[in-house]
Amino acid sequence: MNQTFTVQGMTCGHCEKAVTTAIKTLDPDAQVSIDRAQNRVEVTTEQARETVAAAIREEGYEVVS
Amino acid sequence: MNQTFTVQGMTCGHCEKAVTTAIKTLDPDAQVSIDRAQNRVEVTTEQARETVAAAIREEGYEVVS
Repeated sequence: MNQTFTVQGMTCGHCEKAVTTAIKTLDPDAQVSIDRAQNRVEVTTEQARETVAAAIREEGYEVVS
Repeated sequence: MNQTFTVQGMTCGHCEKAVTTAIKTLDPDAQVSIDRAQNRVEVTTEQARETVAAAIREEGYEVVS
């Protein structure tokens, strides 16, 4: 299931890695692609969207949509 | 020995941690204080200034002065 999130606050490569790691901790089989300039996080996972969003928020980032 | 560096590119807490960890890897007894808004890194260490600067650069940040 492809999910796209708009995420504010990712300022650097460490942030991308933190978000990626959080999602992959939730689902080791998840595919994660981040376009930081566009504040876009694309995830392929069977996890519920709200569960993925919560994992991103827990890292300190705002999930706008 | 107190050293103060002006460092560009630290955008978030992960960056502060990366710089701190790099310096403490060099010298576990180092004291590191970072004021990100001021681009300022203050270090207390017996390591040579250029050695500390190199460790910061290796993390991908620009040591301006």
